[in-house]
Amino acid sequence: MTRRRSKERRRRGLPGAPPGTLAIDPDAPKPEIRVIAFGPEAFVDEPVAQAEDLASYLEAWPVTWINVDGLGDEATLRELAGVFELHRLALEDVVSLGQRAKVEPYENCLFVVVRMPTPEQDEDTEQVSLFFGKKFLLTFQERRGDCFDGVRARILQGRQVMRSSGPDYLAYALIDAVVDAYFPELEKIREQLDQLDDEVLGNPQKNTVSKIHEIKHHLQALRRAIGPHREAINSLLRESADFVTAETSLHLRDCYDHMIRLTERVEIYREQCADLMSTYLTVVSNRMNEVMKVLTIIATIFIPLGFIAGLYGMNFDPGVSRLNMPELAWAWGYPYALGLMAALAGGMLWFFKRKGWFD
Amino acid sequence: MTRRRSKERRRRGLPGAPPGTLAIDPDAPKPEIRVIAFGPEAFVDEPVAQAEDLASYLEAWPVTWINVDGLGDEATLRELAGVFELHRLALEDVVSLGQRAKVEPYENCLFVVVRMPTPEQDEDTEQVSLFFGKKFLLTFQERRGDCFDGVRARILQGRQVMRSSGPDYLAYALIDAVVDAYFPELEKIREQLDQLDDEVLGNPQKNTVSKIHEIKHHLQALRRAIGPHREAINSLLRESADFVTAETSLHLRDCYDHMIRLTERVEIYREQCADLMSTYLTVVSNRMNEVMKVLTIIATIFIPLGFIAGLYGMNFDPGVSRLNMPELAWAWGYPYALGLMAALAGGMLWFFKRKGWFD
Amino acid sequence: MTRRRSKERRRRGLPGAPPGTLAIDPDAPKPEIRVIAFGPEAFVDEPVAQAEDLASYLEAWPVTWINVDGLGDEATLRELAGVFELHRLALEDVVSLGQRAKVEPYENCLFVVVRMPTPEQDEDTEQVSLFFGKKFLLTFQERRGDCFDGVRARILQGRQVMRSSGPDYLAYALIDAVVDAYFPELEKIREQLDQLDDEVLGNPQKNTVSKIHEIKHHLQALRRAIGPHREAINSLLRESADFVTAETSLHLRDCYDHMIRLTERVEIYREQCADLMSTYLTVVSNRMNEVMKVLTIIATIFIPLGFIAGLYGMNFDPGVSRLNMPELAWAWGYPYALGLMAALAGGMLWFFKRKGWFD
Amino acid sequence: MTRRRSKERRRRGLPGAPPGTLAIDPDAPKPEIRVIAFGPEAFVDEPVAQAEDLASYLEAWPVTWINVDGLGDEATLRELAGVFELHRLALEDVVSLGQRAKVEPYENCLFVVVRMPTPEQDEDTEQVSLFFGKKFLLTFQERRGDCFDGVRARILQGRQVMRSSGPDYLAYALIDAVVDAYFPELEKIREQLDQLDDEVLGNPQKNTVSKIHEIKHHLQALRRAIGPHREAINSLLRESADFVTAETSLHLRDCYDHMIRLTERVEIYREQCADLMSTYLTVVSNRMNEVMKVLTIIATIFIPLGFIAGLYGMNFDPGVSRLNMPELAWAWGYPYALGLMAALAGGMLWFFKRKGWFD
Amino acid sequence: MTRRRSKERRRRGLPGAPPGTLAIDPDAPKPEIRVIAFGPEAFVDEPVAQAEDLASYLEAWPVTWINVDGLGDEATLRELAGVFELHRLALEDVVSLGQRAKVEPYENCLFVVVRMPTPEQDEDTEQVSLFFGKKFLLTFQERRGDCFDGVRARILQGRQVMRSSGPDYLAYALIDAVVDAYFPELEKIREQLDQLDDEVLGNPQKNTVSKIHEIKHHLQALRRAIGPHREAINSLLRESADFVTAETSLHLRDCYDHMIRLTERVEIYREQCADLMSTYLTVVSNRMNEVMKVLTIIATIFIPLGFIAGLYGMNFDPGVSRLNMPELAWAWGYPYALGLMAALAGGMLWFFKRKGWFD
Repeated sequence: MTRRRSKERRRRGLPGAPPGTLAIDPDAPKPEIRVIAFGPEAFVDEPVAQAEDLASYLEAWPVTWINVDGLGDEATLRELAGVFELHRLALEDVVSLGQRAKVEPYENCLFVVVRMPTPEQDEDTEQVSLFFGKKFLLTFQERRGDCFDGVRARILQGRQVMRSSGPDYLAYALIDAVVDAYFPELEKIREQLDQLDDEVLGNPQKNTVSKIHEIKHHLQALRRAIGPHREAINSLLRESADFVTAETSLHLRDCYDHMIRLTERVEIYREQCADLMSTYLTVVSNRMNEVMKVLTIIATIFIPLGFIAGLYGMNFDPGVSRLNMPELAWAWGYPYALGLMAALAGGMLWFFKRKGWFD
Repeated sequence: MTRRRSKERRRRGLPGAPPGTLAIDPDAPKPEIRVIAFGPEAFVDEPVAQAEDLASYLEAWPVTWINVDGLGDEATLRELAGVFELHRLALEDVVSLGQRAKVEPYENCLFVVVRMPTPEQDEDTEQVSLFFGKKFLLTFQERRGDCFDGVRARILQGRQVMRSSGPDYLAYALIDAVVDAYFPELEKIREQLDQLDDEVLGNPQKNTVSKIHEIKHHLQALRRAIGPHREAINSLLRESADFVTAETSLHLRDCYDHMIRLTERVEIYREQCADLMSTYLTVVSNRMNEVMKVLTIIATIFIPLGFIAGLYGMNFDPGVSRLNMPELAWAWGYPYALGLMAALAGGMLWFFKRKGWFD
Repeated sequence: MTRRRSKERRRRGLPGAPPGTLAIDPDAPKPEIRVIAFGPEAFVDEPVAQAEDLASYLEAWPVTWINVDGLGDEATLRELAGVFELHRLALEDVVSLGQRAKVEPYENCLFVVVRMPTPEQDEDTEQVSLFFGKKFLLTFQERRGDCFDGVRARILQGRQVMRSSGPDYLAYALIDAVVDAYFPELEKIREQLDQLDDEVLGNPQKNTVSKIHEIKHHLQALRRAIGPHREAINSLLRESADFVTAETSLHLRDCYDHMIRLTERVEIYREQCADLMSTYLTVVSNRMNEVMKVLTIIATIFIPLGFIAGLYGMNFDPGVSRLNMPELAWAWGYPYALGLMAALAGGMLWFFKRKGWFD
Repeated sequence: MTRRRSKERRRRGLPGAPPGTLAIDPDAPKPEIRVIAFGPEAFVDEPVAQAEDLASYLEAWPVTWINVDGLGDEATLRELAGVFELHRLALEDVVSLGQRAKVEPYENCLFVVVRMPTPEQDEDTEQVSLFFGKKFLLTFQERRGDCFDGVRARILQGRQVMRSSGPDYLAYALIDAVVDAYFPELEKIREQLDQLDDEVLGNPQKNTVSKIHEIKHHLQALRRAIGPHREAINSLLRESADFVTAETSLHLRDCYDHMIRLTERVEIYREQCADLMSTYLTVVSNRMNEVMKVLTIIATIFIPLGFIAGLYGMNFDPGVSRLNMPELAWAWGYPYALGLMAALAGGMLWFFKRKGWFD
Repeated sequence: MTRRRSKERRRRGLPGAPPGTLAIDPDAPKPEIRVIAFGPEAFVDEPVAQAEDLASYLEAWPVTWINVDGLGDEATLRELAGVFELHRLALEDVVSLGQRAKVEPYENCLFVVVRMPTPEQDEDTEQVSLFFGKKFLLTFQERRGDCFDGVRARILQGRQVMRSSGPDYLAYALIDAVVDAYFPELEKIREQLDQLDDEVLGNPQKNTVSKIHEIKHHLQALRRAIGPHREAINSLLRESADFVTAETSLHLRDCYDHMIRLTERVEIYREQCADLMSTYLTVVSNRMNEVMKVLTIIATIFIPLGFIAGLYGMNFDPGVSRLNMPELAWAWGYPYALGLMAALAGGMLWFFKRKGWFD
């Protein structure tokens, strides 16, 4: 718990600090810069040590994608910001993790934040910041490992659309890869829901509720992560004529469509979660009622029997008068009493049965 | 369960694949192409083997409707896309099933997706993709069998409005047929609700809840399938001056009206479902309460009687003093005790009755 | 049930039929046409047998109101549509009952649908279709009997505003009459709610719930009938400059105001319904709790008494030692035991009383 | 009940009556007209008997405020409408009480309806109708008594802003007075809520629920009365450039601000009401559970004791064998049995205690 | 309680008072004026005794920030209003505490109200009023102590951005400080929620509910305080071109972003609160059910045993016939009876166990 708390504090920067202050996390990995520059005919893909070395790529290639893994060094970040003339507020957002997906237009570039699902880590999503202008795409990730290998492969294999489009198409491709990466996450949740469905109906456990709650919280987190993307992609579509070509817009519209289906899927699972919960409560309450009913039926049958037993345990003196408990002196007295009890018990059972109380 | 899962995976294409990739389902039926071309005076209706053969129809006839049943062959689809200059993203949507109803304008045509109810199959709805330009309507269906026979009959019988209108009117007629095909679906649900209504009030079963849940889920699925059509038809009305004539717009407005009534009907049934559920819970809870009340009344009556019996079962020695249980030696002692019990039981019954606890 | 079902089917026309098909109900009453034509100085009011006869009125009078009761004859309807050049989609809406209130502008006239409450019939509302142009108002009703007698009287008595205004004012007057006709309906519901309120608090019956549900469903039906009028009147106000004068607009604004108050009243009653339901549930649950509490108190008092009685019913042999149940041989043993029981019962009653469990 | 019902009927006028019909309540007080006319330097404040006498004021003074208390005389109202050229629909609204707050622009004046809280009467709010043009403000109230004395004092004391502004400022001042008059109403509700809060937690009574319901209904009535003012003031701000000066607009913006705070306060109290209700239900349910638990514990302790007593009340013959109830012949048999009982009871109490069931 | 009540009354000014009346709280601290004036190169920071002395700063320095702590002296406030030509309605808002965050444009300046969290005081938030024009920023606080020390430090340390920007940037910096000051508040709530989470699951107490309610109320208060800031900052962004530079707008957009994250965080905690409550209710209800089940099981086991004991306590005379209770005379009679009881109890326990009722 302590760890998560300190993380959250770090995420929102230092309250009261001047705007533009970079709240670098000392434990964050050091930045590693990798450049993929390409044109219709050729490409290079190499690590870069110094931010200053980047200028040459920008001149030489139609499109340069600079990817930075790790945000643990203020100097490097400031150098990069210098090379690409990033606004200091945008740079602050890059390092203050926990941003919602958004699009912010600046004079010389568009700044886009998306959140990439990271199933194998202990955090739900990783912040990816994209800046793209006319000739470059600059991306920042919290750490190594991403869902962009498919995009890289398409560049390196020289697929025609990718190679001949600008950085806007590349940015679209990355955003699309992020959106698509949520589907396996949802698939996992669907499997958990299927399992829980069986468990709730067949054999509800004490921890079933907490499992449902866990999925519910996971879905809420996903909803909060996914939701803003929709608005972000929409504003890319609407406002960004300067940096986004009409062809890329068509692709973004498609990506928006995927986003809506993602949102819809999350809503479906949230409904299923609520249904599961209410089913669970009904099942548990029915069980409890069943238990109480059976217990009460047992007690209710034996109490009258006990009364009859008590009746013939009374000590009225048969010697005083013929009226005083003559049954005690009957030859068939005891069998008669047992029969009376059996009849009473049987009668009650029949009555309960007829009423349908054993169903 | 396994089957449905794999289907869903197929539906959303391969994550990370480049846009425009056709995720052809190997089990999907092979495409069968059928052309109905017509003008005010004449028509042809024949199967076509090769996509290239289509160009001649487009030249010869005012309106050509090309219907494709089955999406199981990439080559054919790509050929068709070539003939009609379909955008690769649109083509990708055609084969990635599970699209929501939508309208997307392209340069040379409008792309419309609708979902057709397929009651006799194990899936709820089938995706129908329509492309229409100035002279053609191209439709893709997942498999054979649709609800368009009425429309075909109208063309072949030479109804004047149909024959003399363009592909926009034909597209409207198909969309209208799809919308109308939802009404019988809803009719079926209404009958199920009527039945369940009787069952809940008269004789609630263990599986009544799951039946209600099933209808509820069916309605949710229908709502999700129907909902986007409304927006889609609306955007056809608003944005599509190039491809839709004013006269067809009037008809689409009528179709939109039907859509709203469909939505309203679904909402009514959803409300009924919720009412049924709450009625069911009330009925079940009332029954349980009734059972517990009767059981408790029985126990409550016999416990005091048992006490009296226990009282005269005490062994105080009447010989020691006259105060010690003189009743035991009364001539009418036993009848007196029985009478006391009867009076007590009767008194309690009268009290409970007066309180209205037997109602 | 069967009857209502077939009616609903009829209402939405035949699925798959071409647009403009008239789904005439064979059991519907035959049309009766009545014309009221008037100018500032004079009027005529007479039945008309043939639709062709109407043309003469249109020429001779400033305003002609043609009212048609009954929709059971396709030929007559098509003739009327011919005389007034009605669009075939509008005519289809006239006979396909179950339309929501709406306004549709056509070239030569406005088409308005409203739903008139019909308390004395087994259906909740009756569809009234109005067409009005520059010189005529054409109304279609499902059957004889309406709430327009006040309007007719105003025309015949020669009230100045009515006589000198155009068909738009007449249409307004009819719509206003329809809106006003909902108020007595609501008044009835209010009285039922008042009655139920007393019943729930004083003497809840088994059928109280179903009565509340009935009112709730009635209110939902009214809400669905009333709701669309609001939007319809609003669109009359906004869009219809061609056919509606500024003066009539002022009156429509007033009518819109009434509509809002109607809607508000329905919402109030719906809230009251929900309150009634929750009060009912609370009352019933309190009663049940009360019953269980009293029963349990009775049992709880007698069980310890029964224990004491059982105690002195034990057969330990007093002859063996002085310790073995010496009470049995006390002179005051029996009174002592009775006193012990009375004290125990009294003590428990006092304890329960002090705890406030008898409140 | 009868009285309130007839009132409501009166309020919505006669259904089917022609628009502009004045539904005068015969029991309504007769109109009393009072004029306050003023300019920067002087003022008059006098009752006026005849509506015709008003024309002279309008000519002589920059601002004339005509206040009419009571709506019980049609002739007077029609005369006033004649002098100020009020539209007959507006006049109809003046007498048909139960209007929602609204602003309606007419050619020569603005028509504003507000609802004034009237705590001391049996109705919640009183309708105040304001008409103001360039030189006059005409107000209609249902009866004598209002919250405008502060405004009158400011005029008579010659406060500069008031005296030198036009009728729009005066109208603002009255509307502001009405808005402010709701605050004491809310203060009263807050005090009731505070009291109920104590009552619910400390000593919930049978009528606590109905008290909460009463406040809830009061708040709903206030919300319905207050709500439309917000929109009304807003439309005064937006649409009324002809009759409202920029300076008065600033004040209306302030008034709108108060309105929002009023609405917010009502929402807070509504939330508190809902919280109170749920707390009450929890408290009552906890109490009931507590009672049942104690009762069941008592029964559960004595039932095993009763069993032991019953055990040694069995009549097995000790003479037959040594195995038959040798305890009965023990010298310490009875103390042993009592001890067994005490141990059993103590054991159960200890177990229940350890489980925390007495908390 | 009395104190809070009187405070609220004070906050909304005197109802019926003329607009612009200053409702000075006599207990409020006296105003202390402190001026920080600065330009790119230099600054002064000194207390000022008289409002008249301020004019000289306004002339001499590019930016003058006048901060007023305490609102307890009408004369001072009116003097300040005179110097800066504040509108009397704005001045009224400054002293009538309890304003919602808002932005109001006036001719010569913008008037902004924000609410600053004040964790260490008994009120939740303190009202801060900002007026800024081209050369000055005037702030009013209720009392000494604020969250602006960071901003002051940045001015005094001569940070370049701050020193060379205008009063709009300074105003932004203060608003940003206020927004950031809410984060520690939320952090505290999160810690309380974590604690309660443990408490609810591990060891729910009687006061757990009231603790949850308290947090809920706190969150509602925060939501109401925070909510309007969002709209206020948004309207600063939209409407205030005259007084806000493009560069400051970029910063305000960033601040708006923080605001949204604040709102989102509050919503997350509200959801957690609701979850906690429902978990608590489930836990408590489960416990109660558990108690009742165990108690009922105990009673249910002993009642049949008691019946058997009662059976052999019956007094049928074995001497009369061999059928009358021969068991009593068996040598193994007593052990047989005990065995019967043990078998019955064991059987029931086994049955209950098998049914899973001890889980």
